[in-house]
Amino acid sequence: MSHVTDDDPGRSTRARRILTVRGEAAEDRLDHLAGEEPMAIRAAGPGEEPVDVAITMRTPGFDEELAAGFLFSEGLIAADGIAGFELGDPGDIAHPDNEVTVRLATPFDASAIAARHFVASASCGICGKASLDAVALRCPRVAPGPVVARSTIVELPDRLREGQRVFESTGGLHAAGLFMPDGGLVRVREDVGRHNALDKLVGASLLAGELPLADRVVLASGRLSFELVQKAGTAGAPILCAISAPSDLAVETAERLGMTLVGFLRGDGFNVYAGRERIDLGA
Amino acid sequence: MSHVTDDDPGRSTRARRILTVRGEAAEDRLDHLAGEEPMAIRAAGPGEEPVDVAITMRTPGFDEELAAGFLFSEGLIAADGIAGFELGDPGDIAHPDNEVTVRLATPFDASAIAARHFVASASCGICGKASLDAVALRCPRVAPGPVVARSTIVELPDRLREGQRVFESTGGLHAAGLFMPDGGLVRVREDVGRHNALDKLVGASLLAGELPLADRVVLASGRLSFELVQKAGTAGAPILCAISAPSDLAVETAERLGMTLVGFLRGDGFNVYAGRERIDLGA
Repeated sequence: MSHVTDDDPGRSTRARRILTVRGEAAEDRLDHLAGEEPMAIRAAGPGEEPVDVAITMRTPGFDEELAAGFLFSEGLIAADGIAGFELGDPGDIAHPDNEVTVRLATPFDASAIAARHFVASASCGICGKASLDAVALRCPRVAPGPVVARSTIVELPDRLREGQRVFESTGGLHAAGLFMPDGGLVRVREDVGRHNALDKLVGASLLAGELPLADRVVLASGRLSFELVQKAGTAGAPILCAISAPSDLAVETAERLGMTLVGFLRGDGFNVYAGRERIDLGA
Repeated sequence: MSHVTDDDPGRSTRARRILTVRGEAAEDRLDHLAGEEPMAIRAAGPGEEPVDVAITMRTPGFDEELAAGFLFSEGLIAADGIAGFELGDPGDIAHPDNEVTVRLATPFDASAIAARHFVASASCGICGKASLDAVALRCPRVAPGPVVARSTIVELPDRLREGQRVFESTGGLHAAGLFMPDGGLVRVREDVGRHNALDKLVGASLLAGELPLADRVVLASGRLSFELVQKAGTAGAPILCAISAPSDLAVETAERLGMTLVGFLRGDGFNVYAGRERIDLGA
């Protein structure tokens, strides 16, 4: 049963070969991405069987702190109620590290879990691999889709911001935008939550009878997590771009679904993490 | 039963009086914040009772699109399976607008919900007010706490970034930092998820026997949602700062808990959304 701590940088960050584009120059180089894996948080009193409280997508490391902080922040345990931690599930060979049980000094009141009404913000299985398999199963590889010019890609953030003008007064909203391969804006949706902005965009396309989005480009503000790639892939979008960085699991998911993943889209440059064949660097 | 659309900007954004600080100048002015409210997503086949599928914290507007996009993205419904929408719960006077039922053309397979293992990323009740009440109930108002100098507040982002140097290679992580009132860094925790970074920080403080954080300042990268304020408040932190904007519900929660909320902390300026008495503008 291994113990995941900050001494394990190999799981907090992952090295991957990416294509960096700055103006007309492109370079293949090694980059470091943030790790993203699901973790089950469990609680149990003395001698009790552990109860599943929550599953969260997190960067491995400081896992006991995460479990303790989550249970305390959610009002499920007292600050002085922790007797110890049990890491992993010895009977589960596939993913022994992604489960933390908080052992309490007194019996755990599992009825409090239902009362908390945890918000569903994402889908995943208890195990990253199982979840990836489930996504791959219900979500076929995306269509070959369009090839988009480098010069079009770098213009997308400005066009997204123009589409956001209704909300620009608040400065506090995430956005997801749908574009034609020539950069024409189809629509923008905004929300305090990244995943909600993308759900609204996909929902609008669904209600307009436009799914799958086989000949479209999607741009998300902020970072790219596993769940955003999964949502865009389920809608059939072959090219997903973002202003900020993807997690390692986001890239792995894009590769599985045959998607193109662009990140750090700022100024005249961006990084291509998967599916380079859909970017025309000479145009 | 009202219909929430983009024609209802009053719920997508809210006006509030805030204090803007730029260098040594401070001004009281009206600002617009992004709305944040819980929404229940339900599904039902013809003649069936609606089943609760998920609750999400979202910015009101485009609610049918959000419900349709979520159910489709999560693999729970087919793209052509929607017969219509029912908004609100006529029997629920307190929050009629925050519930969307997607009426399907064929029976809804509720067994798929459990199979999806929705990730718990936050806590809230089905209703914003009920949730705020629950937080207020289990979470007493924070202590009076320290008064912090303006000149200290503006230095916090640089100190957080210094503490993040282990992960700076990835550029893709959120961070939460704990500081002394004089700006001294206690610790930093990082994660792909904002809420996880704060849970790790609170968990580390809990395991170190340091709760409540009555004489500390917390800084979060990114935006401030309801859940981040609730988590910091539960840990007893009187001052919560962030690099980006808070939602309206984040500010309301801070006011209820007696917390100081600072946002848009960049360069030599910031905005104070609640609890101005803990900021010494002359120092």
